Amino acid sequence: MADNGDRVPVDFRTEPSGYKHWRLRVDGRVATLAMDVREDGGLRPGYELKLNSYDLGVDIELYDAVQRLRFEHPEVGAVILTSAKERIFCAGANIRMLGRSSHGWKVNFCKFTNETRNAIEEAAAESGQAWLCAVNGPCAGGGYELALACAYIVMADDGNTSVALPEVPLLAVLPGTGGLTRLIDKRRVRRDRADYFCTLEEGIKGPRAVEWNLVDEVAPRSRLEETARARAATLAARSDRPADARGVALTPLERTVSDDRIAYRWVTCGLDRRRGIAEIVVAGPDTPPPADPAGAQAAGAAFWPLALARELDDLILHLRVNEDEIGLWVLRTTGAADLLEAHDRFLEKHAAHWLIREIRLYLRRTLKRLDVTSRSLFALIEPGSCFAGTLLELALAADRSFMLDGPREGDTAPPASVRLTAANFGAYPMPNGLSRLASRFLAEPERVDALEGRVGQDLDAAAAAAAGLVTFTPDDIDWDDEVRIALEERAAFSPDALTGMEASLRFGGPETLESKIFARLTAWQNWIFQRPNAVGDMGALQVYGTGQRAEFDRRRV
Amino acid sequence: MADNGDRVPVDFRTEPSGYKHWRLRVDGRVATLAMDVREDGGLRPGYELKLNSYDLGVDIELYDAVQRLRFEHPEVGAVILTSAKERIFCAGANIRMLGRSSHGWKVNFCKFTNETRNAIEEAAAESGQAWLCAVNGPCAGGGYELALACAYIVMADDGNTSVALPEVPLLAVLPGTGGLTRLIDKRRVRRDRADYFCTLEEGIKGPRAVEWNLVDEVAPRSRLEETARARAATLAARSDRPADARGVALTPLERTVSDDRIAYRWVTCGLDRRRGIAEIVVAGPDTPPPADPAGAQAAGAAFWPLALARELDDLILHLRVNEDEIGLWVLRTTGAADLLEAHDRFLEKHAAHWLIREIRLYLRRTLKRLDVTSRSLFALIEPGSCFAGTLLELALAADRSFMLDGPREGDTAPPASVRLTAANFGAYPMPNGLSRLASRFLAEPERVDALEGRVGQDLDAAAAAAAGLVTFTPDDIDWDDEVRIALEERAAFSPDALTGMEASLRFGGPETLESKIFARLTAWQNWIFQRPNAVGDMGALQVYGTGQRAEFDRRRV
Repeated sequence: MADNGDRVPVDFRTEPSGYKHWRLRVDGRVATLAMDVREDGGLRPGYELKLNSYDLGVDIELYDAVQRLRFEHPEVGAVILTSAKERIFCAGANIRMLGRSSHGWKVNFCKFTNETRNAIEEAAAESGQAWLCAVNGPCAGGGYELALACAYIVMADDGNTSVALPEVPLLAVLPGTGGLTRLIDKRRVRRDRADYFCTLEEGIKGPRAVEWNLVDEVAPRSRLEETARARAATLAARSDRPADARGVALTPLERTVSDDRIAYRWVTCGLDRRRGIAEIVVAGPDTPPPADPAGAQAAGAAFWPLALARELDDLILHLRVNEDEIGLWVLRTTGAADLLEAHDRFLEKHAAHWLIREIRLYLRRTLKRLDVTSRSLFALIEPGSCFAGTLLELALAADRSFMLDGPREGDTAPPASVRLTAANFGAYPMPNGLSRLASRFLAEPERVDALEGRVGQDLDAAAAAAAGLVTFTPDDIDWDDEVRIALEERAAFSPDALTGMEASLRFGGPETLESKIFARLTAWQNWIFQRPNAVGDMGALQVYGTGQRAEFDRRRV
Repeated sequence: MADNGDRVPVDFRTEPSGYKHWRLRVDGRVATLAMDVREDGGLRPGYELKLNSYDLGVDIELYDAVQRLRFEHPEVGAVILTSAKERIFCAGANIRMLGRSSHGWKVNFCKFTNETRNAIEEAAAESGQAWLCAVNGPCAGGGYELALACAYIVMADDGNTSVALPEVPLLAVLPGTGGLTRLIDKRRVRRDRADYFCTLEEGIKGPRAVEWNLVDEVAPRSRLEETARARAATLAARSDRPADARGVALTPLERTVSDDRIAYRWVTCGLDRRRGIAEIVVAGPDTPPPADPAGAQAAGAAFWPLALARELDDLILHLRVNEDEIGLWVLRTTGAADLLEAHDRFLEKHAAHWLIREIRLYLRRTLKRLDVTSRSLFALIEPGSCFAGTLLELALAADRSFMLDGPREGDTAPPASVRLTAANFGAYPMPNGLSRLASRFLAEPERVDALEGRVGQDLDAAAAAAAGLVTFTPDDIDWDDEVRIALEERAAFSPDALTGMEASLRFGGPETLESKIFARLTAWQNWIFQRPNAVGDMGALQVYGTGQRAEFDRRRV
């Protein structure tokens, strides 16, 4: 396999004026996002993005559009996703690109595209911005998976247009961006029909697609646009988003990147490449929150919670794709717990305001990214840290945490403490639908209730340990050695074994569509992405388009 | 990797007099099963089963003991699982064996061991036979996973005894036999503690193991046996199993195996190696059921439902491990629906009788094996078939079904029909906890209720299709071509892609401990079992015990 030049850094920052592949139009309550992939606009050399197929670059723009529709267009209650091409909706992920990509690149690409599709569903469920898909041409593989993420699918009823998941017959891989799970668990297609559908190269068109619930409606090609608009208007009319509010511009995110450091306004990250460790420091707010949502709106992208979400989001994405040999992320915080708690109270108080809701949802999505990140996460809670409320979620997301018990010699800062706020009790559910506290105390849910009574208290190491909020509490004498050894040991284990272990331990309790996608489906796809039948020299993914026939090892595993 | 002589057929049939590795003692209401693995008793040459480590042969005997305790010992209400060795409980799966095994062998081995551990849990939950583990020495990896499957764990509190899951640090693989899932979702160990525990080679001993809920109790070494007996007596006292009933002997299972055919009394299987297809035919009963449970008891292992369960169970296990190039199983039935329905009514009526309960649970476990089998399953419903009740579950377990609509030319048999019985509405839940009908109609649960009103009716192809019970209903003109093409197409797809697809489509709806183990955990383990960090020339699993140090690709995926 070619390595696909994975070493050229990927930048996730973009904006509509720079889009190569999408056209975004806002028309009152309804926006239209049309896919118009530029064939020669691939992120990497070596493949052409024919037939509206996509690569990571196309999806980075889609993700940007999802965010901007949320923040910059409070008036938009429905989004029509369609194709700007004449004869194709979308052929899915670009196969040449996949064939040339390393294993890690494939897996990371699928993870990011999954997260964006989840964000599309969350927009409908939580934010009053429902996505509707107008399928105006063949819609295959990742194209149909994109449609499946929408709240409503209307498809042209013509001889040309169908929906299909042809990955298994054509490529010997899975529809790995949520397709199988959404078929069964979202659209609840009968399993034998799903089985048949997933082996059909040509897909299913017309009324049968409706009968099998693969789409919600078909319309004559000539009336597709009109139908989509009418349905979108209905969806938009149900939205609680304000028609008359002003959006918040997501101004360009400033950061500096050097060989061993990435720095934003509130988030910094040092890279220790020799040890394979990233040291991430997140700063709490340095001023009180504004008096009201109008103040937050005036602050715009500079408002601390929004700035934090954007910076942390970008850092996570950057590290995942550009720094794959950094296997351990160490999470630290700085700042004043009082200011942090004041911000959490502000967000809680105004949770129904469209902008505040968006900010909380953005924080939720960003923290969820941590949950599904295949890196070990350790939190270090030390004097001067600010693990309170929203930032305490970082420690709760970590695989384990160390809290220094008592003062540090030569340090005038008071001993470390942690503080719960209302935000820890439901504002930021994990992919399994539970808060991080509830996931932590599966055995003793009553502990979560008891902890609600301690909101606002500063818990020192002994109290935090007794409350079950931290893993280890060494004192100053033991701290350096204990932490150093833990970090070094972690960094020495097999990265793959850690990925599988963390993915298994992080999600106890209930499963959701989202957790099923990241667990069951992704794990199977990752396995298949390693199998010679897909990626060997004569594997189906490798020989696709060459005129050669794939050769399979017939043994079932 | 060595291929481990996978081609020498494995026979799953055994009996206590032939055990090499276990000692089974029954003492009134309490049985003791002591692990005493013979070092030179490996199923394959090339490794020694030191430290009570196990291979498939050891687990085949364990499985046999689980079955016999259920059927031959109705009086046993609790089982003490312990070690007969002086200084070791169990070191887990044999690492040399794993290192020498093919990928398919490893995966299949884990699947079978998982099923046996699930059966141990089911014995406690459904059959009044609770397993208790007396950990009388170091208990690591698969050894602790075996303990985790028990309803209660008591551990010696001495300097030598600990529980451990050292797979990640020692071998760069997962504790893949349910360990991670049971830690988090059964014992609900706090996730950060579980994370730490799973990276500790030496494990955790004494009171801390109780505090973290890794075990239920510790006892001084000198009092361990006494404590285990006392707890077992308490568990047995709660059992509803009859103290005075006579067991049913699981007499040797008769079968004939030739190169292209496996035949039992009620089940036969033809192998078409060229096409990669197994044709399985299951015959319904040829006599009415007995008048009462005493009659069933008198018939013993010859009673049709019990004979069916044993034969189908053995065939599934045989095909999985010995015929891995047969990727598609075609399921057919023969017999009289009236006799079948009469048997189902008999089983339903006497469901509370210990033997009838056991038989139904055995059928349930056997049908669950189909659900998690990585082979494509197609059901063919033709004139003369007997897809009714318990045997209709075969069609409902299939990935798709074909039912011949109308008569077959030149065949005097009446057109095919299917028949629901009460058994289809909850007697045989899948690993997700739902009946196969409920799993089928996730989108329309009211259909399941409506179908209950049609119990006992013969549904022809049109009615069965309208009821949603079958996938396709070609008539005699189309049947041969349509079925042939479907079989050939299926057999041509990538076996790996089919495995991932089927594992994703078969389990909609809720997740259980069991479904999580087979989906999330198994999929991650399979992925890791393919990764060079575990199985490459310098992978940790390969170099273990050689004195060499594993070398890892540090890239996180």
